Amino acid sequence: MLILITYDVNTTTESGKRRLRQVAKTCLIYGQRVQNSVFECILDTTQYRQLRYALEELIDPRTDSLRFYNLGNKYKTKVEHIGAKPSQDLEGPLIL
Amino acid sequence: MLILITYDVNTTTESGKRRLRQVAKTCLIYGQRVQNSVFECILDTTQYRQLRYALEELIDPRTDSLRFYNLGNKYKTKVEHIGAKPSQDLEGPLIL
Repeated sequence: MLILITYDVNTTTESGKRRLRQVAKTCLIYGQRVQNSVFECILDTTQYRQLRYALEELIDPRTDSLRFYNLGNKYKTKVEHIGAKPSQDLEGPLIL
Repeated sequence: MLILITYDVNTTTESGKRRLRQVAKTCLIYGQRVQNSVFECILDTTQYRQLRYALEELIDPRTDSLRFYNLGNKYKTKVEHIGAKPSQDLEGPLIL
């Protein structure tokens, strides 16, 4: 299933900047960055739980926020991109 | 249907900063901001077309990007929030 992850991390402190880097780094393990703080990940239920737990451990819930959107398995017709840097088809051939 | 809108606008120029403000202002007409550059809008097909056209007219497609995610009508179980500033239930009672 396609899980969309969006986040806001308060970067007014050094620890906030570090949290932002760690959140992005963790999301990159599971999927692709499509915008600054927006990631798309193809996950099964177990991976989704793992990623959600890992991110929850990283953020400061008083100042940061995470949002998860489950677009299911038939997501290709549900996503539209306009403008710069279109994302790669996560399930398409890997173009190196 | 719930349409999620995420965007990246290049703000290295004054015109970019203006585009960012205009994109946010336009999205606010149709829905609620849930994170910095993430909006949730309950739209019918016509409204979706109108909003998409309006935003497309505002951005610079060479440097900015818009993404639209259609979560359909049964979206409440598809969205999860962790951390600060949870969004308001768009179809719930308006709490003033």
